[in-house]
Amino acid sequence: MPIPATEAAVIATFMRHLGAVRADVVLGIGDDAALLRPQPGYELVQTTDALVEGVHFLAHSAPRSLGHRALAVNLSDIAAMGASPAWALLSLTLPQIDAAWLGEFAAGFGELARAHSVALVGGNLSRGPLTVTVLLSGQVAAGTALRRSGARAGDEVWVSGTLGDAALGRQMSADGTEDAHQAWLRARSEFPTPRVALGEALRGIASACIDLSDGLLADLPRLAQASGCGAELELELLPLSAAAQARGGESAWEQALAGGEDYELCFTAPPERAALIAALAARLEVPLSRCGRLRAAPGLELRRDGAVIRFSQSPFDHYAT
Amino acid sequence: MPIPATEAAVIATFMRHLGAVRADVVLGIGDDAALLRPQPGYELVQTTDALVEGVHFLAHSAPRSLGHRALAVNLSDIAAMGASPAWALLSLTLPQIDAAWLGEFAAGFGELARAHSVALVGGNLSRGPLTVTVLLSGQVAAGTALRRSGARAGDEVWVSGTLGDAALGRQMSADGTEDAHQAWLRARSEFPTPRVALGEALRGIASACIDLSDGLLADLPRLAQASGCGAELELELLPLSAAAQARGGESAWEQALAGGEDYELCFTAPPERAALIAALAARLEVPLSRCGRLRAAPGLELRRDGAVIRFSQSPFDHYAT
Repeated sequence: MPIPATEAAVIATFMRHLGAVRADVVLGIGDDAALLRPQPGYELVQTTDALVEGVHFLAHSAPRSLGHRALAVNLSDIAAMGASPAWALLSLTLPQIDAAWLGEFAAGFGELARAHSVALVGGNLSRGPLTVTVLLSGQVAAGTALRRSGARAGDEVWVSGTLGDAALGRQMSADGTEDAHQAWLRARSEFPTPRVALGEALRGIASACIDLSDGLLADLPRLAQASGCGAELELELLPLSAAAQARGGESAWEQALAGGEDYELCFTAPPERAALIAALAARLEVPLSRCGRLRAAPGLELRRDGAVIRFSQSPFDHYAT
Repeated sequence: MPIPATEAAVIATFMRHLGAVRADVVLGIGDDAALLRPQPGYELVQTTDALVEGVHFLAHSAPRSLGHRALAVNLSDIAAMGASPAWALLSLTLPQIDAAWLGEFAAGFGELARAHSVALVGGNLSRGPLTVTVLLSGQVAAGTALRRSGARAGDEVWVSGTLGDAALGRQMSADGTEDAHQAWLRARSEFPTPRVALGEALRGIASACIDLSDGLLADLPRLAQASGCGAELELELLPLSAAAQARGGESAWEQALAGGEDYELCFTAPPERAALIAALAARLEVPLSRCGRLRAAPGLELRRDGAVIRFSQSPFDHYAT
């Protein structure tokens, strides 16, 4: 494949036809801006997240994983609002034009975009340290979005999937000696699954929702505070994968609480909706685990086997790390 | 001012109340994503552009200028579509948290945002090499957006303002010895004026439009090609500022053609609309200069005093430079 020399050529070669084809894209990549047709009666949902080399991923990370993750972290935010993703813009800063790298990156991004009907409608390329910034827009019927602020004391706390896998997976190296558990944890880190269908299904069921990007220890208090509450977590109810239990030992609990980057959903609901939520888990084939409740008193109380415990690990912070 | 330590604190301190207050922002910064209410019957217009240290600006550039420019380059894209800007998201990568720097940056961004009724509805902060990425959305009545592709052979080529100032201004140093012309050129480079009101007014008048980010030599052929045409430019009709003529000498012409980053609009219209356009220039107090025409034959022909000339300077490319 010839190596394109300019911004316009790279965008034309790697970005123009990357995502899903959508009828509501009036004008995609190729003009000064994209033209999109919002659905009448819906609200627009917008988020942005960036991945910076050396901060969010190591130098020489697999470009296919990077393309996937850059979109996945934004899909996770849209999912946490209960919205349906629609249109993405991609701002890439690259130290040099490497066609093989770009092809792999585009494959990772494009596959996930098509799986969630996301059209790539704008692109931008600069020379510089490797950074991937995605802007993602979604839509949600007006007034139905899930917010962090809708919960009440007494609501139960639920999480999707299993927690801590990504943090454990970041510690695994692809050196060829890894076992099946290690490979699975690494895949959870490199190719996280945004819970888009779950978020959509939780509208009208969950009272509040947040995505777990920084870990339960950081993210649950954000939801609780926005709702004017505190929270209690029962650590033995946190969902740990078989791989995390096999490979993580005691640190599996710590990573489930504070490891970050799981991109699962944490949501709340009144206790009487528990059966509805269990049915949803079965229908979507996503594990949903009840692991705590909101309370009127502020703060986050951690309990293990009935006793209140202290936990010293600092929460994950995307600026500090 | 205390120096905030985490992403959340920086966003709360510097970003949360930065832009305009808009009634169509249902939920701004502080949840997983923003919730916005699109105007019924309008199309959504989206663009993104990034400024990278060492590429788009020098190390130790004034942060107020950087905040202004990061938004201005995106406003210019929205203007080129004839749309009205509405909502911005800001992705910042910073090597360290410097409250004084952030305050100046926010002032530059916020002042321009409020001047154009742009709400800042999302923010994201990472540690890393200084990069500023803005994602801007606007709205335009369905079917009325200006595109690059609407022009026909015979349409006249117009440009707003004066050209080449920013490129000359980039060469000026703020060393205290500069004269009024130099200071003016530097201001054109550091605080470009996006032509938002002009873009809005050109709907129904211009047949095609593009913003001049890379210079007329690169951008006019993009418009012409998108419209299935070629173009002719009369160099002596290019609008040069008094400062550019005084300080630039012969290079003023070259910079007007190829310097880039003027963020003026280049648009086309049938000849019979010339009086309408002149009236618009007077009403908006923006110089509008007719400097060429589209033709059926492809390519870009440059003429000076009636003779066809060749021009060797490469067009500005935001990846290559």
